[in-house]
Amino acid sequence: MKVIVATSNKGKKEEFSRLLKGSPLEPVFPERSLEVEEKGSTYLENALLKARAYCEEFGLPAIADDSGLEVDALDGYPGIYSSRFWKIEYGGVEEDGRSPPERNLRKLLRLLEGKPRTARFRAVVVLCTPHGSLIAEGECRGQIIDQPRGEKGFGYDPIFIPEGLSKTMAQLSPEEKDAISHRGRAVRNLLKLIRDIQPCSYPSP
Amino acid sequence: MKVIVATSNKGKKEEFSRLLKGSPLEPVFPERSLEVEEKGSTYLENALLKARAYCEEFGLPAIADDSGLEVDALDGYPGIYSSRFWKIEYGGVEEDGRSPPERNLRKLLRLLEGKPRTARFRAVVVLCTPHGSLIAEGECRGQIIDQPRGEKGFGYDPIFIPEGLSKTMAQLSPEEKDAISHRGRAVRNLLKLIRDIQPCSYPSP
Repeated sequence: MKVIVATSNKGKKEEFSRLLKGSPLEPVFPERSLEVEEKGSTYLENALLKARAYCEEFGLPAIADDSGLEVDALDGYPGIYSSRFWKIEYGGVEEDGRSPPERNLRKLLRLLEGKPRTARFRAVVVLCTPHGSLIAEGECRGQIIDQPRGEKGFGYDPIFIPEGLSKTMAQLSPEEKDAISHRGRAVRNLLKLIRDIQPCSYPSP
Repeated sequence: MKVIVATSNKGKKEEFSRLLKGSPLEPVFPERSLEVEEKGSTYLENALLKARAYCEEFGLPAIADDSGLEVDALDGYPGIYSSRFWKIEYGGVEEDGRSPPERNLRKLLRLLEGKPRTARFRAVVVLCTPHGSLIAEGECRGQIIDQPRGEKGFGYDPIFIPEGLSKTMAQLSPEEKDAISHRGRAVRNLLKLIRDIQPCSYPSP
């Protein structure tokens, strides 16, 4: 089944391509990206907003994720604000840095000075059709380090070491990342959910 | 596929039985009901809380709904508070009436004196497995009347006349109600959603 991937984030597009390979969902990428305001107050609400917008606009089932980094010492921030953390009020606006991702990292590291470093990445994945949606979740626990390491991945990957590993997310190969990442786990749960309801076959109309 | 119906409401149990008849979902009723605190701020969150609790407790896929009556003149109230409207702060606590449903009706009719009567019932239905959930919605628009009419149905049914009809929900036969009700529509959307993803068949493992 063809599904449109509801994102304009290059890193996410690559991850969805890898994660859906060999599955019954065939990813299709939109010719243009939609401006969807992420006005929800949870990952689920934001993922639903994105998936529904793409499903309506392109007339295909749509897959979207919303995800974030939740730092224990910051009461779960940046969470749903992860991609725009640098410009929200909490902890003060970060002016330094060449790009939003760099500003996000700087702000997080500034706020974490002298604080405990445990955190988790969380992702909610939604597959939307005109009649409703399938939803699944994944998480990856780990630690925030002081200095970015690695060139792969995106977002907060260079400062996050997953539990049980000694490399950052940005130092892992794509396959290593997919095996333990929040998005990898969420997409695998979505595929298992589809399998769970396969026994529900209808007689042909 | 057997699914446990996550409700202790007699009226909802009967509706789910009728609505799932002939579908690939075979409703099973729990021997005992669980106390699930409906602490969400949306129908979806509350329906997910109920479905997940039953799925975990009984080890079967679980189906739950959360629904409510949204009255335009009351800014969408009682909404998620529909079953406990009589005891929430909004509009003052209602002490009169023999039962919670009767107190709910009295409070609503008191608050609506001299106000426009348009409203809608909304339902969100969730089917939960250990790997994630399917979600679907339904709504039914209509008018609130002053005097309860009819003995069938439950909740606000006796004071709600669906658009295009002249009887209240509580005067309709079960089949007539299912054909136009919010819960009927939500369950039919859920069954269509299952059908939408049937092409996603996996090769046998």
